[in-house]
Amino acid sequence: MSGPASGALEKLQALDHEAYLLERVSAILSWDQETGMPDRAVGERAEQLSLMQGLTHERSTDPRIGELLEAAETEARTDLDRDFLREKRRRYEKATRLPTALVRELAETASLGHNAWVEARKADDFGRFAPILGKLIDLNRQVADHLGWEVTPYDPLLDQYEPYATTAEVRETFTKLRDGLVPLVQAIAAAQQVDDSALVGVFPVAAQEEFSREVMVALGYDLDRGRLDRSAHPFTTTLGSHDVRITTRYDEARPAPALFSTIHETGHALYELGIGEEIRGGVLAEGTSLGIHESQSRMWENIVGRSRPFWAHWFPRLQARFPEALDGVNLDTFYRAINRVEPSLIRVDADEVTYSLHVILRFELEQELIEGRLAVEDLPAAWNDRMERFLGIRPPSDALGVLQDVHWSMGAFGYFPTYALGNLYSAQIYRVYKRENPQATAQIEAGDTAPLLAWLRDRIHRWGRRKSASELIEDISGEPLNPEYFLEYLREKYREIYTL
Amino acid sequence: MSGPASGALEKLQALDHEAYLLERVSAILSWDQETGMPDRAVGERAEQLSLMQGLTHERSTDPRIGELLEAAETEARTDLDRDFLREKRRRYEKATRLPTALVRELAETASLGHNAWVEARKADDFGRFAPILGKLIDLNRQVADHLGWEVTPYDPLLDQYEPYATTAEVRETFTKLRDGLVPLVQAIAAAQQVDDSALVGVFPVAAQEEFSREVMVALGYDLDRGRLDRSAHPFTTTLGSHDVRITTRYDEARPAPALFSTIHETGHALYELGIGEEIRGGVLAEGTSLGIHESQSRMWENIVGRSRPFWAHWFPRLQARFPEALDGVNLDTFYRAINRVEPSLIRVDADEVTYSLHVILRFELEQELIEGRLAVEDLPAAWNDRMERFLGIRPPSDALGVLQDVHWSMGAFGYFPTYALGNLYSAQIYRVYKRENPQATAQIEAGDTAPLLAWLRDRIHRWGRRKSASELIEDISGEPLNPEYFLEYLREKYREIYTL
Repeated sequence: MSGPASGALEKLQALDHEAYLLERVSAILSWDQETGMPDRAVGERAEQLSLMQGLTHERSTDPRIGELLEAAETEARTDLDRDFLREKRRRYEKATRLPTALVRELAETASLGHNAWVEARKADDFGRFAPILGKLIDLNRQVADHLGWEVTPYDPLLDQYEPYATTAEVRETFTKLRDGLVPLVQAIAAAQQVDDSALVGVFPVAAQEEFSREVMVALGYDLDRGRLDRSAHPFTTTLGSHDVRITTRYDEARPAPALFSTIHETGHALYELGIGEEIRGGVLAEGTSLGIHESQSRMWENIVGRSRPFWAHWFPRLQARFPEALDGVNLDTFYRAINRVEPSLIRVDADEVTYSLHVILRFELEQELIEGRLAVEDLPAAWNDRMERFLGIRPPSDALGVLQDVHWSMGAFGYFPTYALGNLYSAQIYRVYKRENPQATAQIEAGDTAPLLAWLRDRIHRWGRRKSASELIEDISGEPLNPEYFLEYLREKYREIYTL
Repeated sequence: MSGPASGALEKLQALDHEAYLLERVSAILSWDQETGMPDRAVGERAEQLSLMQGLTHERSTDPRIGELLEAAETEARTDLDRDFLREKRRRYEKATRLPTALVRELAETASLGHNAWVEARKADDFGRFAPILGKLIDLNRQVADHLGWEVTPYDPLLDQYEPYATTAEVRETFTKLRDGLVPLVQAIAAAQQVDDSALVGVFPVAAQEEFSREVMVALGYDLDRGRLDRSAHPFTTTLGSHDVRITTRYDEARPAPALFSTIHETGHALYELGIGEEIRGGVLAEGTSLGIHESQSRMWENIVGRSRPFWAHWFPRLQARFPEALDGVNLDTFYRAINRVEPSLIRVDADEVTYSLHVILRFELEQELIEGRLAVEDLPAAWNDRMERFLGIRPPSDALGVLQDVHWSMGAFGYFPTYALGNLYSAQIYRVYKRENPQATAQIEAGDTAPLLAWLRDRIHRWGRRKSASELIEDISGEPLNPEYFLEYLREKYREIYTL
């Protein structure tokens, strides 16, 4: 924050910091709502959130920002200044293109949509959700029109979550990915299935929580800069530069979901906590895209957290926590159990081989919905047909099919593809890390992931939004995103596990 | 919220509701800071609070409010409308007198001051706190000057916490109170001391927490509208009309502090939760003064919670929770132990006889600080001298003396007297309750406090700020606040316990 006291750049940075603080306030309200808010507070909390979001929008579209952006262009001296102005302008232009009435209608419809979805899923009745889903699609289409598009209205929606990405390039990448995944899934299906019965038993929740905390801290999560709490659905949220919290949920009979979700969320949190000091507290202080964010969570969860070297260190510790449940289980059995592959109906429970196919299905369907090529009433059938094509199984009900995810009910279209992009980025990034660090595997086997974290901080975390996802991957690996690395990682790992 | 759509009154009510929501957002940030925020988030949280308070101040001084207040005068039809306009005008006039920059500076300094105080107390080093305390005094003096005063700058500060009260009348009341307390303390000191060794032992914290929850709920606290958490210093805070949370702290060796602080905070919470439906969510939806607030907490904690009838019901239940620690202790021994009187160093641990003397000491010192008659560097000595004069004991350290309370570190001057006013109000109010409800004692003995809560809701809680403290006490008892009732209550109770 240097420059003359009257400088436009400095004023803009001050306003930007206030915008950052305000957005974090909303995050605190949401975190509290998910973790411990009393039941009867829900109505007023919705009002508080809507008021805060209105205030934030009001401030982020303040015409002073437009004027300051113009004036500050000539003041930019460093790359950092230029990166700041680029992202601030991007944010401002997006915000000012959307009419306040549309933003408010989308927020209100999403709130109603979420309720309708909860009811519809409970009753396994898509018809209860269909009308409001139709309205949410229509409003998203209006958002796309206001933001502007050339090739497809899906482009500006995708860009909200994966900045600077285009539908065309994601489609091309996903086509290669799908063509590689389908034969692998088939080969595994034909092989001898692994036994994962070791993952079911009695695993007291308090011990699960202690073990989760032990792992988090060992991975580099600083409890002075965050917390681990419980919520109905695990999430990570940034409440401040030094306050990134994660949540999980426990099942006494099955320790794996809590364990891997904690590692996953720790991956997200380490990214946010690793933002460079020079860009903290402003528009650049955020993961650059949800795809890169997901690359961090999935690298820790899957590439590291479901690897044999990782459990060579941690399995004896896990066994010590649960001596009865894991009596007689060995490392190899455990390793194979946590990597069991099986086509299944629910995305969030899917293994790392089939997972991306769930995402590609949603990516295709939401484009068709937004482009008007698929009618809402035809969606359940289209979903089920595609599940059969991609994974060879047909949902017996809409609750286990088209109604399973929360995203559309909250008005989020263009979000899903970032999950699979994360898988692809993670493999491509980790491959470079291993090449540059021949000791990588030995270090992880010794329980030492500090060198990996330091490397990720240097190459990814500290940059925040200064580099786009495509710049990051080019700078790290010397080439654009290439799905072949993820496929290669999967083929190598599962060839061994399933003796393909 | 009735009236024509274009009515000024209705517009004012809508703005007032937004102000209410915004203030609650700040309360959420503060609650989180005290209960579980990661340590390193403290700096940015101070900025967030300062920003929110600035925003709230900006909105509460919007000139539209002034115009609407004028226009709405002719629209007021009911007493409720007139009460709303009176309090809204009072709030608006106070707010417009304070410059936004001062409000923000005070908030930010208070947040940092709190931290400095924590460090200073830990290190028993007043010098670490002195500079920021000096700044907080100076800022408070500026606040007083902006709010306006005639007799003493302490008047407008006191009025922030005890609306419509004056320093002169509180001083007069406190003089009578002190003149009555000192001989009582002396008489007790000369009597045979009661044995409170039953209150020390091993009382597992989890069981203490469960018992606290059981008592809270029995007193009428609804866990769907609140929570019980832990914090360094117990408090109650209103996060919404249906979200009033309390905190406490536990000591495994001594169950009494957590128990009575929970009952105390429950008293505060029941007041806030009892606000009438017709005034929720706006300027009237708050305890009318901290003195009346404290009358509720102290009535439940002391008059009810340290009474023999109360423990006739609860002692067997407490004994069942802690069978070993309370083995062989009987009701009478327990009752006398929880009412042991002894001059002590720490206000929050003081018994109900000596407590008010701690408050009067602070009331005097903070007037001198604000009026510039006492320098910050002379404060520790002044504190210690006065402790010796009032209670006959001298703190061996500042941590056990001038550094013990959080209030000044948060910039609150004029707050302390409300604690002793609470004692006085509680006795005067409860005396009327007993007269009107001859079954009062029998009901409490049977564990039934619902009639008391219903009576308090009717006479006090539901009114919120519609009646001032002096109107309430006049309406309830037919006379102004009179310290004689509290003295009478103490004399009668302790005559029996200490056989005076």
